[in-house]
Amino acid sequence: MDVRQYIEDHAAEFFGALGQWLAIPSISADPDRHEDVRRSADWLKDHLTGTGFDVVEVWPTDAAESAGLPAVFAEWRASDPAAPVALVYGHHDVQPVEPRAEWDSPPFEPAQRDGLLFGRGASDDKGQVLFHALGVRANLAASGAARPPVTLKVLIEGEEESGSPHFADLLRAHADRLACDVIVVTDTGMWAADVPSMCVGMRGVVAAEVDLRGPEADLHSGSFGGGVPNPLHVLADLLSGLHDSDGRVTVPGFYDDVLPISGSERELIARLPFDEKAWLADAGHSGAVAGEAGYSTLERIWARPTAEINGMWGGHTGAGGKTIVPAEAHAKLSFRLVADQQPAAVIAGLRQYVSEHTPPGIESMVTAESRGVRPCFSAPDSPAVRAGRRAMERSFGMPVLFTREGGSGPEADLAEILGAPLVFVGVGLDADRIHAPNERVDMALLLKGAEAAAYLWDELAAAAGELTPRGAQGGRLPATGTGR
Amino acid sequence: MDVRQYIEDHAAEFFGALGQWLAIPSISADPDRHEDVRRSADWLKDHLTGTGFDVVEVWPTDAAESAGLPAVFAEWRASDPAAPVALVYGHHDVQPVEPRAEWDSPPFEPAQRDGLLFGRGASDDKGQVLFHALGVRANLAASGAARPPVTLKVLIEGEEESGSPHFADLLRAHADRLACDVIVVTDTGMWAADVPSMCVGMRGVVAAEVDLRGPEADLHSGSFGGGVPNPLHVLADLLSGLHDSDGRVTVPGFYDDVLPISGSERELIARLPFDEKAWLADAGHSGAVAGEAGYSTLERIWARPTAEINGMWGGHTGAGGKTIVPAEAHAKLSFRLVADQQPAAVIAGLRQYVSEHTPPGIESMVTAESRGVRPCFSAPDSPAVRAGRRAMERSFGMPVLFTREGGSGPEADLAEILGAPLVFVGVGLDADRIHAPNERVDMALLLKGAEAAAYLWDELAAAAGELTPRGAQGGRLPATGTGR
Repeated sequence: MDVRQYIEDHAAEFFGALGQWLAIPSISADPDRHEDVRRSADWLKDHLTGTGFDVVEVWPTDAAESAGLPAVFAEWRASDPAAPVALVYGHHDVQPVEPRAEWDSPPFEPAQRDGLLFGRGASDDKGQVLFHALGVRANLAASGAARPPVTLKVLIEGEEESGSPHFADLLRAHADRLACDVIVVTDTGMWAADVPSMCVGMRGVVAAEVDLRGPEADLHSGSFGGGVPNPLHVLADLLSGLHDSDGRVTVPGFYDDVLPISGSERELIARLPFDEKAWLADAGHSGAVAGEAGYSTLERIWARPTAEINGMWGGHTGAGGKTIVPAEAHAKLSFRLVADQQPAAVIAGLRQYVSEHTPPGIESMVTAESRGVRPCFSAPDSPAVRAGRRAMERSFGMPVLFTREGGSGPEADLAEILGAPLVFVGVGLDADRIHAPNERVDMALLLKGAEAAAYLWDELAAAAGELTPRGAQGGRLPATGTGR
Repeated sequence: MDVRQYIEDHAAEFFGALGQWLAIPSISADPDRHEDVRRSADWLKDHLTGTGFDVVEVWPTDAAESAGLPAVFAEWRASDPAAPVALVYGHHDVQPVEPRAEWDSPPFEPAQRDGLLFGRGASDDKGQVLFHALGVRANLAASGAARPPVTLKVLIEGEEESGSPHFADLLRAHADRLACDVIVVTDTGMWAADVPSMCVGMRGVVAAEVDLRGPEADLHSGSFGGGVPNPLHVLADLLSGLHDSDGRVTVPGFYDDVLPISGSERELIARLPFDEKAWLADAGHSGAVAGEAGYSTLERIWARPTAEINGMWGGHTGAGGKTIVPAEAHAKLSFRLVADQQPAAVIAGLRQYVSEHTPPGIESMVTAESRGVRPCFSAPDSPAVRAGRRAMERSFGMPVLFTREGGSGPEADLAEILGAPLVFVGVGLDADRIHAPNERVDMALLLKGAEAAAYLWDELAAAAGELTPRGAQGGRLPATGTGR
């Protein structure tokens, strides 16, 4: 029996199981639903046990200071101990459902309409997690083997929609058991239903507040205006100078670690049917794109780092006028990062920049908001990405293009801590309305995902000789990539 | 009897009267004290009647939309109908007294300590108004005449500390009766008790809000950052560009109407014993002065126009980070103006500047906060100022220097509407703590003010031939000034 036939034969059963799981309101952000998040983990444990995994465990994530929500770990060993090891990453918690009144059917009573399955988590991420259980069964049905051609590990966390607060600790605590040659992320999307694509990178982020102080208190601008430095002017100068006339960020060293985007990736990005006007209109941003000279809009938002002012304030901001030289000026900045930029290095560069742009009479301070999120990137021509792309192309029967994502979640931690490259195999769509009312998933695409997942293990097994030895490579340092 | 002897002989009587007036809490900003403001006007009317003025009237300022507080008008005609006409301007309302607990003696129970008279209004402005009544009596005592050598008009308003909302209307309504050859402003200060000086100009001001709008709502900076214009970046660029590298304002036409400061005025300003470090320390501004290249600090804050950012806001300004491309950015700007700049012309220039600096995809709007306040200036070598300076030098027995003020009140309206030059004869000091607890006045200086006022009428009468014909000249257009 071939993979496609198996999946077709078991589709009803698959959607039945998914419907059960979607009925569990595993909202990690809502303390009243934490028992449901635990029930969701137990449901998945039972399901993966039924699928045939050798080991299925619910892993608590309690940290000293706070109660965490459980992840599910499973492992199905290959017959060949030398076979590659793949780790599937996803999450079983879901977003809140407010505003509930805008749902056409209740968010936790899954409903099928017109080939779509509606319900919170249908696309993000339960549907995309569950197709792996169907996929591995289809792989075995086609091969007739009792075990998959790679050792298959699964780690499905329960706190992704709450910022994965315990995830890095969990990875470090279980690094031995999670050791793998490739990480398959099953939490991303495609360009469109008829334009299958794979993500190959996510931008990181680091944020900081810049505080400037001048006089001890606001001064009367009649008495002092024009004679002393005004912190708001200094801030405007400092922020205006953050970009040069080509839209490049002027923070010292900012581009030192930036991997240039390869000609082949640019070529594939250019083939995406991108309607810039529609994209702007969706954003409610009329008129114009803007950004770094020499790059297309998609390259700018996916493959190039940025500096953004997220907020700015100082002086009199209420009604009417107040003629003062204000005492303080503040800005919140964030930087989107691309491989191989390091959050700490960018903050150090920002400190230097601010210090160099602070004139006498003004004091400046830069405070990092957090440790930041590292960017991640898998070279399109790396063995793991090529294996994933072949699996997707076999499933969809057409060429698969590349995308990236402008923001990122815990993926960079996975690549960094486990030292393995990331492969993004996902079939979500922008139309899925994740994080919004009436979340849904295209049922045919979920089955395509299962099919791609079934082929993926064969493709990775075939690429075994090319994969970098386990633990030797981080997604952040894709040293095997070429032509970038 | 000479002027000085007369004043000495009547000093106790003068301070007794002033104490009565200071006991009336004429706080125009406090509706509960409006009856006291009216009592204060009546008190002054009685006092000026007792002084010997021909006409003394309380002028209501009620406008159609709001109840105003009364001004006091008085006139004492010269014997010679061809004698110059001088109008003394001051105010009888006072600032609020909060924080009351910080007063060493109650604000409306005048107290004398160490040659100082404490009480709200002692310096600003009742003390300085009242010395004119003593001054004119001393003039008459010295000359033996029954009438002053100039026709003396007095206009003492009751809403100055509330922004003089009805004052321009009052001037227009009574322009015929207020017609004069020179306006003597008795509401300013001197450099120091031992450095007598006269103000010769006040900066005007005009304020506006700049609003920029980009996307309809805040955008996720991961998805859009680097690809669309960010209103906060545009605002920072726009505000940073408001000054060139010499600190000059780049608003189109900004300097077109600016009268250059004359070499002789600069020379007199340079003779003022100005301690820049102490000035900065008083302002709580450590370290450095800043401003337009080629000018001293006093020239910058007195004689040069400025652009100041008074407030700025947009995007996320709360705790923590929020990685957005914000929808809006706002700034409040004010411009200090010097003669002969016009508020409306500066706003027009700002509109042009903002429009030229708004890139595609961003909408901008400039809203003027009000009609603004015109600057005023009296050339130091004009006949009226020279007469005032001679009177001051006779009173103080030493050279009198020139200052200006960085901000302004209704003086520009006086000069503009009445078409007469301004002469500032005031003996207030920075140490008087006007608008603050423990307001006080140096009693010896008040008597010096009375003495200067006594001489002033003789000096103006002597300069009659040089004064510009009545109504032909505004303080804003000091066409008779030379060497500026």
